[in-house]
Amino acid sequence: MSASERSGQELRPSQRAGAVDPFIVMDVLRDAQAMEASGVDVAHMEVGQPGGKAPRKVLEAARRAIEEDDLGYTEARGIAPLRERIAQYYAERHGVAVSPQRVFVTTGSSAAFTLALIAAFDTGARVGLANPGYPAYRNILHALNLKPVLLEAGPQAGWAPQAEEMSAHMAAGMKGALLASPVNPTGAMLSREELSALVRVVEEAGGIYISDEIYHRLTYTEEAETALAYSDNVFVINSFSKYYAMTGWRVGWMVVPEALCRAVEVLAQNMFINAPTISQYAALAAFDATDELEERKRQYAENRALLLRELPGMGLAEFAPAEGAFYLYCDVSSLTTDSVALARRILREAHVATTPGVDFDPVNGHRYLRFSYCAARADIEAGLERLARWLQRNAP
Amino acid sequence: MSASERSGQELRPSQRAGAVDPFIVMDVLRDAQAMEASGVDVAHMEVGQPGGKAPRKVLEAARRAIEEDDLGYTEARGIAPLRERIAQYYAERHGVAVSPQRVFVTTGSSAAFTLALIAAFDTGARVGLANPGYPAYRNILHALNLKPVLLEAGPQAGWAPQAEEMSAHMAAGMKGALLASPVNPTGAMLSREELSALVRVVEEAGGIYISDEIYHRLTYTEEAETALAYSDNVFVINSFSKYYAMTGWRVGWMVVPEALCRAVEVLAQNMFINAPTISQYAALAAFDATDELEERKRQYAENRALLLRELPGMGLAEFAPAEGAFYLYCDVSSLTTDSVALARRILREAHVATTPGVDFDPVNGHRYLRFSYCAARADIEAGLERLARWLQRNAP
Repeated sequence: MSASERSGQELRPSQRAGAVDPFIVMDVLRDAQAMEASGVDVAHMEVGQPGGKAPRKVLEAARRAIEEDDLGYTEARGIAPLRERIAQYYAERHGVAVSPQRVFVTTGSSAAFTLALIAAFDTGARVGLANPGYPAYRNILHALNLKPVLLEAGPQAGWAPQAEEMSAHMAAGMKGALLASPVNPTGAMLSREELSALVRVVEEAGGIYISDEIYHRLTYTEEAETALAYSDNVFVINSFSKYYAMTGWRVGWMVVPEALCRAVEVLAQNMFINAPTISQYAALAAFDATDELEERKRQYAENRALLLRELPGMGLAEFAPAEGAFYLYCDVSSLTTDSVALARRILREAHVATTPGVDFDPVNGHRYLRFSYCAARADIEAGLERLARWLQRNAP
Repeated sequence: MSASERSGQELRPSQRAGAVDPFIVMDVLRDAQAMEASGVDVAHMEVGQPGGKAPRKVLEAARRAIEEDDLGYTEARGIAPLRERIAQYYAERHGVAVSPQRVFVTTGSSAAFTLALIAAFDTGARVGLANPGYPAYRNILHALNLKPVLLEAGPQAGWAPQAEEMSAHMAAGMKGALLASPVNPTGAMLSREELSALVRVVEEAGGIYISDEIYHRLTYTEEAETALAYSDNVFVINSFSKYYAMTGWRVGWMVVPEALCRAVEVLAQNMFINAPTISQYAALAAFDATDELEERKRQYAENRALLLRELPGMGLAEFAPAEGAFYLYCDVSSLTTDSVALARRILREAHVATTPGVDFDPVNGHRYLRFSYCAARADIEAGLERLARWLQRNAP
């Protein structure tokens, strides 16, 4: 046996890589794609990405960048005009003054999470996350040797982490928190009072608050407030992937506390070099594409209204407050104790793709399905119709 | 004093972020840009990126992708045709069979380093690096809670880490190594014998070898061999940034040991989602742009020949074997014991930008300057002429 064969048998991932969970939704996607490849029409209510192309002005800016720019490396923080435009966004929409010096253009919100977490926390630090919540948070924490602390954010907590629980964990040595509003998968939003209280509790305990605002501008009841309205010492993460419909372009941004800007800059130089140059130029045009983007949002709002109107009549009447993002998080415990099996059956028998809650909530996710409503109206209508028929045949 | 003001004063980067060194070369770049902004012509022999645009075929593919594709998320591993084309590259150039299943398209080589290091190593693991070497290796290791072990790769070691030293460190518990060939900053290459011996030593000790092959195809004496020729259990990292001249596009690739593919896929889903979609389609055309890329390489080779001919006559006769990449690593100890101060003086007085060795070698870097020769011929000629005049006036 050669050395290579021997070590091949021994080769194992690191423990931290082993602690990272795969996404169940990816299995759903694979199954759905296999069904489509065999000619079955699948209604997509699982995907978390806006369909279609980025706005016309964004595409035009990308074309222009190919002609006019060499598209070499940029500053690690991103191109100055985009940083300035992002700073201006906070002044315009939130009345908050943010220096462009504190703005970092990142390779999607993904890179921003990594940079913020490394800059803020050392090995073994415990960091609060809402449960249910975006599963990549937990997994990135594991990868970076941090320990997730799940804060209750289900129906008992009114779908938002509570300041009292946060306070108790901070007193017990938790180092900070990474929280989104609106939330994927629930669509719930923190009220201004909740957000400011959570920020205050973390900061008064000497911790660091990271606010994921990727679903800002996709709200249907009231505007979401930025954590920057309550403190200059929070990290605020956002992206061009959701409202701005630029998923595959991998470009987002982060506002960084002044005292940590140098650390983040040096980390970014070493770990990312810069966000894709063409995407930075393209993103600069995204702020001027409001007409097209608001039209998209009107479609999401219509889809949302349709779901809120139709689902209760099918016996699915319990869901989180769908205040933002493009998700409806539905209690399916009247149908199943295993939402993964339910999602599989609905896909195979009704040809509707949905996401089981277990990706988002290791405790109670087996009782929930997430319906995404960012697909085209026809997809949502077809999905609802098929679901209604399937439920008539299969409901208990 | 408010809570926010109080915590603001206390806000400090994590210890691991504090262990990450800034690049001195960035200060040189900033100074050079400031001089240019004030109207001074600077000869650029500091930058490590090919000038100008990506190849025409790459730009054409990017334009086509904007028209024909939605540019949404892709599989975390990257688009299938690109993974297949990369696998084919190993068959064609190296006669090595690599399954496309083992190929991951990454957000530049930067993302590949992060993914490989997390998948392979747990907190506190010691990982061997060549010294001198690419400074981001050390810094990414610190950020990920890994400990760099510097392997001697200066003139005493024949400019390559030696198997004996590697073996001794592995026996003392080192978990693996991350080594490049050709090397930035020295241009030195591992011979086939050296490379195969290093891979064998690491694997026989149960460790993991990560081979950075980003400067492959930029060699001037003989072709570089891939570590995949010696083992299927190595990570091999490459990029479209150097030979293929696509720096700002942020797209590279990694070949992963089969046993770690699933771990890397799940990490990539969580930490990166996918490499920029437009860059993946653009990169697919890079393999067909050989005419243009070989013409670029001929220009580098001419610049290299010019440096090798002219520098010795100026009293700079000691340098690492410039077998690959586009760097010449020059011993300047006859002029200075402080290469940072020397680089500053040469920039200010001779208007030539170079990189001091301290970025690459914390031990002996104060005795070296790195000259990059990927700029245009005119830049290199002007730089050499100014350097010659400055040395006549200032040499001891």
